[in-house]
Amino acid sequence: MNPLLREIRHNPVLWLLAFVPVVLAAEQLRPEAHTLLFVLSVLAIVPLAALLSHATESVAAKTGDAVGGLLNATLGNLTELVIALTALRAGQYTLVKASIGGAIVTNTLFLLGAAFLLGGLKHHVQEFNRVNARVQAGLLFLATLALMIPSAVSQADFAAAEFTQTLSLVLAVLLIVAYGLSMVFSLKTHREMFASAGSGEAGETPWPLGLALATLAGATVLVALVSEVFVESVQQAAVAFGMTPAFVGFIVVALVGGAAEMASVFSAARKNHLDLSVGIALGSASQIALFVAPLLVLVSYVLGPSPMSLQFWPGAVVMILVATITASMVTNGGRSTWFVGVLALMVYLTFAVTLYLLPPRIP
Amino acid sequence: MNPLLREIRHNPVLWLLAFVPVVLAAEQLRPEAHTLLFVLSVLAIVPLAALLSHATESVAAKTGDAVGGLLNATLGNLTELVIALTALRAGQYTLVKASIGGAIVTNTLFLLGAAFLLGGLKHHVQEFNRVNARVQAGLLFLATLALMIPSAVSQADFAAAEFTQTLSLVLAVLLIVAYGLSMVFSLKTHREMFASAGSGEAGETPWPLGLALATLAGATVLVALVSEVFVESVQQAAVAFGMTPAFVGFIVVALVGGAAEMASVFSAARKNHLDLSVGIALGSASQIALFVAPLLVLVSYVLGPSPMSLQFWPGAVVMILVATITASMVTNGGRSTWFVGVLALMVYLTFAVTLYLLPPRIP
Amino acid sequence: MNPLLREIRHNPVLWLLAFVPVVLAAEQLRPEAHTLLFVLSVLAIVPLAALLSHATESVAAKTGDAVGGLLNATLGNLTELVIALTALRAGQYTLVKASIGGAIVTNTLFLLGAAFLLGGLKHHVQEFNRVNARVQAGLLFLATLALMIPSAVSQADFAAAEFTQTLSLVLAVLLIVAYGLSMVFSLKTHREMFASAGSGEAGETPWPLGLALATLAGATVLVALVSEVFVESVQQAAVAFGMTPAFVGFIVVALVGGAAEMASVFSAARKNHLDLSVGIALGSASQIALFVAPLLVLVSYVLGPSPMSLQFWPGAVVMILVATITASMVTNGGRSTWFVGVLALMVYLTFAVTLYLLPPRIP
Repeated sequence: MNPLLREIRHNPVLWLLAFVPVVLAAEQLRPEAHTLLFVLSVLAIVPLAALLSHATESVAAKTGDAVGGLLNATLGNLTELVIALTALRAGQYTLVKASIGGAIVTNTLFLLGAAFLLGGLKHHVQEFNRVNARVQAGLLFLATLALMIPSAVSQADFAAAEFTQTLSLVLAVLLIVAYGLSMVFSLKTHREMFASAGSGEAGETPWPLGLALATLAGATVLVALVSEVFVESVQQAAVAFGMTPAFVGFIVVALVGGAAEMASVFSAARKNHLDLSVGIALGSASQIALFVAPLLVLVSYVLGPSPMSLQFWPGAVVMILVATITASMVTNGGRSTWFVGVLALMVYLTFAVTLYLLPPRIP
Repeated sequence: MNPLLREIRHNPVLWLLAFVPVVLAAEQLRPEAHTLLFVLSVLAIVPLAALLSHATESVAAKTGDAVGGLLNATLGNLTELVIALTALRAGQYTLVKASIGGAIVTNTLFLLGAAFLLGGLKHHVQEFNRVNARVQAGLLFLATLALMIPSAVSQADFAAAEFTQTLSLVLAVLLIVAYGLSMVFSLKTHREMFASAGSGEAGETPWPLGLALATLAGATVLVALVSEVFVESVQQAAVAFGMTPAFVGFIVVALVGGAAEMASVFSAARKNHLDLSVGIALGSASQIALFVAPLLVLVSYVLGPSPMSLQFWPGAVVMILVATITASMVTNGGRSTWFVGVLALMVYLTFAVTLYLLPPRIP
Repeated sequence: MNPLLREIRHNPVLWLLAFVPVVLAAEQLRPEAHTLLFVLSVLAIVPLAALLSHATESVAAKTGDAVGGLLNATLGNLTELVIALTALRAGQYTLVKASIGGAIVTNTLFLLGAAFLLGGLKHHVQEFNRVNARVQAGLLFLATLALMIPSAVSQADFAAAEFTQTLSLVLAVLLIVAYGLSMVFSLKTHREMFASAGSGEAGETPWPLGLALATLAGATVLVALVSEVFVESVQQAAVAFGMTPAFVGFIVVALVGGAAEMASVFSAARKNHLDLSVGIALGSASQIALFVAPLLVLVSYVLGPSPMSLQFWPGAVVMILVATITASMVTNGGRSTWFVGVLALMVYLTFAVTLYLLPPRIP
């Protein structure tokens, strides 16, 4: 039997794939039903993200360690990237920036917090390799700091937009260079430090290469199509649900985009493989800061209606900094309990509440 | 002989109890002598705080570990709570907020710093259980971050007062839920982590239950009465002494309210029981952030002239953050020397000087 | 043969001493050729800084441990101090403050980052004594916090200049007291903690005391003379090179002033003596914060046209805080790899780019 069909049969999440044709049809038939289209597109993106994730791992498993690691690292946030690119093309820069910040916050606070909580409810104290975790948390922290610098400096000085834009461009190039070097570091010179996090994503059998590549291509196209519906409908749907644009970008988009990682992170935590959970959560957040965010800035010069800067609204800067400091803090000791998870989730919940209550003019 | 009287005879601090009737009488006779009333009320609160602390421990010792721990954790900052409630009822929200921030800053910088200094002058290097200290410093840090969020976001966006108020209310509920969960964590599921900090507050013999309960009730009533004099007189006395309201709230009220803890923390440090010192100082600060502060917000809806928010003035936010970062930093390594204490005290002194010099309009 | 001449023959950096007479002559002959004078003065300061450094160590080696350590600690940043004093006398307070901030940032990000990178390219993982590193990073962090407080509080409250000035003066005194206590700590009560960092600066033979003292005096006078040319020409040269004043102060002055330390730090890192590298870099940064900065404030009352405050522009505050947090972070684990160096250098590069692109009005 086709491994793809077998996978679909065994994995209830993939049954949601049925919503992919539904949402595309609905968009043709009822283009004004924004709330419906929003819900349908969320339901369609979740299984596509899971497919993308599995296909990437299968290709990675077949192509050997170095290329595979590269693929995993580059395509790990493909769903987030495609959604952000769609929003970028539509000129919705506020949504793009919110989704960047939201992905960092969600990965560090929600993914990590929920992993610690779920793991901690089953295991009294969980230990994980704190040297690895510290390397990754350090990488994330410094990456995030670099990402935040234009916002901090620009705000502090009420500088001209032109200055911020030039700075963002130069910084995007620097961040991508740092990302390239981080690949050399984690895949080549010091791969042993990242060993446990990169290896064996929980015993799924990889697909044949042809099928994996075809799935990768097909799912990417479908995510792109569905993202278009999602991005178009999300603002009006937000209004209908009484949500602020900031809440949608930071919380809803980030949770939808990160659906695929959640499954892996949580199941690893329950199995007491916290190294893997911490590795995926922090690695994914680093990738957003070092690769996805600067790539979007560069791409905005080609695809967007105007260049996009790296200047975030002040509240987002505070949240991103708090999230990465929290991530450093909770992974620093190499031990976790359920209450550490509760605290991280509390901070996340506070952010969510704040964004939900925010007056609609902001940001 | 009555254990209370024996205690009073042996403990010179309790001789200050003589000032309790004096201040209450003075308030009737010379209600306009603010400076005198201020000094007398400070002298009266200090022994009452010591009594409250001893009575709480005695009740806790009698009622067994779980209930006792709960009592200790809830009533540990009873003096601070009663003073703040009195200020709240008088509508002095600036004083209430300053006393919350000041209690966190005083516990982390002054109590911890002086403990390290006093202990370090006697012992070359002092070691303490750094796993426990890290759990507590982490708890404090995340609690403080959550407490600071409305200030950070509100300032960043110059948002409407209504938004800040709603956010403060929701946040107060979240913090109290987190406080409840922290009790489950520290008293039930992971009590072994907090073992050394909770146990045996330096070998005092507990009082009989009846006496302890009566003392607890009586001292609370007296603290409430004296607090009223203190809160009424503190502003005018501050003017007379050339102190700013911010200095009074942050430094004077916090030192008066924390007098009882000081004795335990310092004597434990001299005896090289730094685990106990660190536990009391950080635990007390966490309790202010997770329990006292949100409780005051909730109570302000009932007792206060208008609802109180969790928005602090920017300088207080900076000080609280610096204090908790410093606490994380100095307890991170699990070792301490006298100079670490000096540095923490230096930061505290800097804050005190800043607040003292502040132009009187601020905050 | 005279040890000074032998040293000059063997150390190509000292050949640049030929530029000392050249720059002094050029200043007489072509006082309006600012760009030329700037380049010549940079070329002349570098070998003088190296001479000063060697002479200080020689005196320290001869005078025994306690006095020697004191000398090393006080004169370690003599070049920076002389340059800053010259700028202070000329009333260029923006340059003075930028050079203070720049020295902290350069020592923590550039020196440390380049040491980790250069060491890491030769050694797979470098370990260093993390207890020492933590003590020093903690000292630096708290010192920097204290230094930043007037800026943070003043900005937050848009307070009067008079308040900031008084606060700066009091704080300068407090910082110098803390510096004195840090000497007692590191040279007397806990010298064993700093042992590896203070001892044997890489096997150079010390000069005879007379020669060392004469060199110390002579080089200081020459640095003072050349600094005058440097400070006078730097602003116009900056304009000619298209550099902002902020970039010149933060980056150029700091790199020129720190030239002497670089050689020691980098060569120790290559030889896998990271303890020494970390010790010099963090120690030098602490000294700027605890001693040079407050000394300049005090001296400004005597030498400057008006008192100088400790209020930095907001962007500088952000950079200094980020730099010291990064220093804590990268030295926390006691291990380093080349990529950690890359990250610290990246943050430094980001700051440099930001300052270079800053609109010229700022700060």
